[in-house]
Amino acid sequence: MTTPKTQQSDVAFDMVVVGGTGDLALRKLLPALYTLDNYGRISKSGRIIAVARWSGDRQAYLRSFGERARQHIAPGELSDEAWSRFAERLHYLEMSAIDPGAYGELAALLAGHEDRVRIFYLATSPALYGDVCRAIAAAGLVTETSRIVLEKPIGHDLASAQEVNAAVGAVFAETQIYRIDHYLGKETVQNLMALRFGNALFEPMWCAQHIDHVQITVAESLGVEGRGEYYDTTGALRDMVQNHLLQLLCLTAMEPPARLDQHAIRQEKIKVLQALRPITHREVTTNTVSGQYRAGAIRDQPVIGYVDEPEVAADSTTETFVALKADIDNWRWAGTPFYLRTGKRMGHPVSEIVLQFRRVPHLLFQDLGEALQPNRLIFRLQPDECIKLMLMAKAPGSGILLRREFLNLSLTDRPGERSLAAYERLLLDVIRGITTLFMHRDEVEAAWAWIEPILDGWSNRHVRPRLYGAGTWGPTESVALIVKDDRQWYEHVV
Amino acid sequence: MTTPKTQQSDVAFDMVVVGGTGDLALRKLLPALYTLDNYGRISKSGRIIAVARWSGDRQAYLRSFGERARQHIAPGELSDEAWSRFAERLHYLEMSAIDPGAYGELAALLAGHEDRVRIFYLATSPALYGDVCRAIAAAGLVTETSRIVLEKPIGHDLASAQEVNAAVGAVFAETQIYRIDHYLGKETVQNLMALRFGNALFEPMWCAQHIDHVQITVAESLGVEGRGEYYDTTGALRDMVQNHLLQLLCLTAMEPPARLDQHAIRQEKIKVLQALRPITHREVTTNTVSGQYRAGAIRDQPVIGYVDEPEVAADSTTETFVALKADIDNWRWAGTPFYLRTGKRMGHPVSEIVLQFRRVPHLLFQDLGEALQPNRLIFRLQPDECIKLMLMAKAPGSGILLRREFLNLSLTDRPGERSLAAYERLLLDVIRGITTLFMHRDEVEAAWAWIEPILDGWSNRHVRPRLYGAGTWGPTESVALIVKDDRQWYEHVV
Repeated sequence: MTTPKTQQSDVAFDMVVVGGTGDLALRKLLPALYTLDNYGRISKSGRIIAVARWSGDRQAYLRSFGERARQHIAPGELSDEAWSRFAERLHYLEMSAIDPGAYGELAALLAGHEDRVRIFYLATSPALYGDVCRAIAAAGLVTETSRIVLEKPIGHDLASAQEVNAAVGAVFAETQIYRIDHYLGKETVQNLMALRFGNALFEPMWCAQHIDHVQITVAESLGVEGRGEYYDTTGALRDMVQNHLLQLLCLTAMEPPARLDQHAIRQEKIKVLQALRPITHREVTTNTVSGQYRAGAIRDQPVIGYVDEPEVAADSTTETFVALKADIDNWRWAGTPFYLRTGKRMGHPVSEIVLQFRRVPHLLFQDLGEALQPNRLIFRLQPDECIKLMLMAKAPGSGILLRREFLNLSLTDRPGERSLAAYERLLLDVIRGITTLFMHRDEVEAAWAWIEPILDGWSNRHVRPRLYGAGTWGPTESVALIVKDDRQWYEHVV
Repeated sequence: MTTPKTQQSDVAFDMVVVGGTGDLALRKLLPALYTLDNYGRISKSGRIIAVARWSGDRQAYLRSFGERARQHIAPGELSDEAWSRFAERLHYLEMSAIDPGAYGELAALLAGHEDRVRIFYLATSPALYGDVCRAIAAAGLVTETSRIVLEKPIGHDLASAQEVNAAVGAVFAETQIYRIDHYLGKETVQNLMALRFGNALFEPMWCAQHIDHVQITVAESLGVEGRGEYYDTTGALRDMVQNHLLQLLCLTAMEPPARLDQHAIRQEKIKVLQALRPITHREVTTNTVSGQYRAGAIRDQPVIGYVDEPEVAADSTTETFVALKADIDNWRWAGTPFYLRTGKRMGHPVSEIVLQFRRVPHLLFQDLGEALQPNRLIFRLQPDECIKLMLMAKAPGSGILLRREFLNLSLTDRPGERSLAAYERLLLDVIRGITTLFMHRDEVEAAWAWIEPILDGWSNRHVRPRLYGAGTWGPTESVALIVKDDRQWYEHVV
């Protein structure tokens, strides 16, 4: 979140993408790096070295995988010339990244470039993180300027997360480790902090006295999309809540940091995680809801149920939906619950943080127009990025009739500007060494420490996910979870 | 401000417009009544009886004055058919309204319609209010359902205001008297109350702890426009500050009333006027600025100076501009001054209330973008009606650069809606008997009680208005008035 002194594009780097033939590399990383290159945001001398076990040379890689990556670049940003220039940075090496003996070619390519920022981006199975780190170390490739980027998930519970962190930490210092959460790279999320701390209007209202509750929704309309094997052993709580939703909760709930630097912000986020009231085994049935989608329809297209997905057990009890009520036991938020929900195969893809203010204490306008609705401040991350303030205002005409109005903060670019996509921003931060938007080991582990008792509680109480139709907003128990508190889920207008 | 139980258009009425050939009648009242008629907002049986000393009959009046009124109707709202229908309501009687013996024809016209709401609209010189009222009474025309509408100014100081109020009050009960201030009929002003009391977000911030200061500007680009004789004995303080600006101040500063009814709101407004700290004779030189325009240019057109205007004394010391700092000595506003300014021949016509919030107490974003500006909530009455919230938000791109953004509350009509113009709304309220937007005697007199010592102070200290060029924002002393408090006038973007 700190801004570099200059917007320099001259940090020389070598970025080794482990898993260079995988989905993440082709859909996100290469397109983002292409775009940064195209806008002159990264050093001309920077190299990208994809490595994978696929047998082929650089030219074959470009023809096959490069071509696939190209298809994920926005048409307006793509030109043959720019792509050719980008392709010159792009190298490919066939190797097993967990085999220290297989690093010869890579070492030769990197040799003599020890002064560069050397980045290892692990776009690979998290199960391999420890082995890959050890192999990199054994191959003698860790330099002082080395950085390693890890995708979620870090572990599948607290102990395994600690194990991964320890294995990576044995090779890289914590300051060299970039645990990425692409939600944090969104313009809207950055603006959440800018709005809170750049305006005197919001911070005094940002507390239990004025906020009735907070809702965080991350809904996907996609199913497991070929990741059935991974997903069926993971579930929505681990896959989404432990990282994305808790990160959004932390940024919303944290105390104002003294400075906008990584240490100060991290400290505040960890304090929030530590203040989360543990959900006891008894409470899993009242404060959490798990669900699993059955066959249904998304935008009138029939889709199969979860247990019919490839690589998913026919009797799977993995949850594809979670809703839960989180309480933060601190001075600021006592009495203001945070309702979280996430699911696959929902009606619309939408990610939003909604702060709902308390009701007006005294109704001067009783019976005068639409039922008086409480104010809401809405941060939408997906499908479009925007920030809205929902107010009641007077309808034109005689008399006082109130109606709902939205004040919209445009996040669209002005002429000469271009927003960075999440991965563009985060990759640029890695190259520049800005760690604010990445997760510290302590955050990951504190999040697991809160999530694990829920997993245990489900197991202990034999909680099985409730079925919900694909294309709906989850099981009816999710509605009940919030309605019993006399509140309701915000209807996401897409 | 209270809403009638039904939006009835069936209140039968006779409206006598005294001064039926005058500017106000032709530019504002008849066009507004035409429009209300055209939209079916007033009873079909309602009659409008223009009276004046001009000698002519109804047909001649329609041809001559009716035609002039027509020209002030928005072209899109005008049709020959609708105008003909409206003209049927319109009567004209030649008479002297201050001569009880001249009321015979009017009495005959009104006879048998005592059950109707009978409205006397005094669109005449305020000097005649007392005499007209006495004549109406002597002619026996005051019924239980009678109402009288008075335009500003009510008096030229406290004693004369009391005199006018007493004279009118001798004939009409206070509940029958409608002292009109067309600024209060503006959609934006109504929305000021709707926003404050219909949203939980604003009221907790609506106090000295969070508001640094308030600015109220009513700037006209017009000069005295043929009203030189009246204006030269009046000046901006009496003509504008005593009524319009203090009314806007009251609505902004008042405590939340318990109910949205006329009594509750009036009570709160009077409390504000009574809490205004008197400006002592010594303070007139530090807390007030008066100005008078000399020749200059408005939108590149040369205009003459005030003393060269027709009917203005060549050595006039009448102020055409006032800026002042008002302090409200109560719990809510202690330490938050209200800066008021109004003037003729300013660069742009603009009327705005600007609430400026305090600065962010701690700068996380130092040196990161545009100088961090405090939040502002802007209610614009003229030239367009709108409400804006000025925030700092993040500029797109990497890093955190803040920039100013405006959230706009659209006051434009949705399909099927039509806002009422100020006079439309207020005339409708008179017909329906809704007094919320009209001034009580006590308000008028409390405002004079605060204004009079300033007039006295100017006289006592021999304060003469500072000259300012037509087309500027007033004398430089106006800038100094606010800059010495380390603040500045908001730059009105037109």
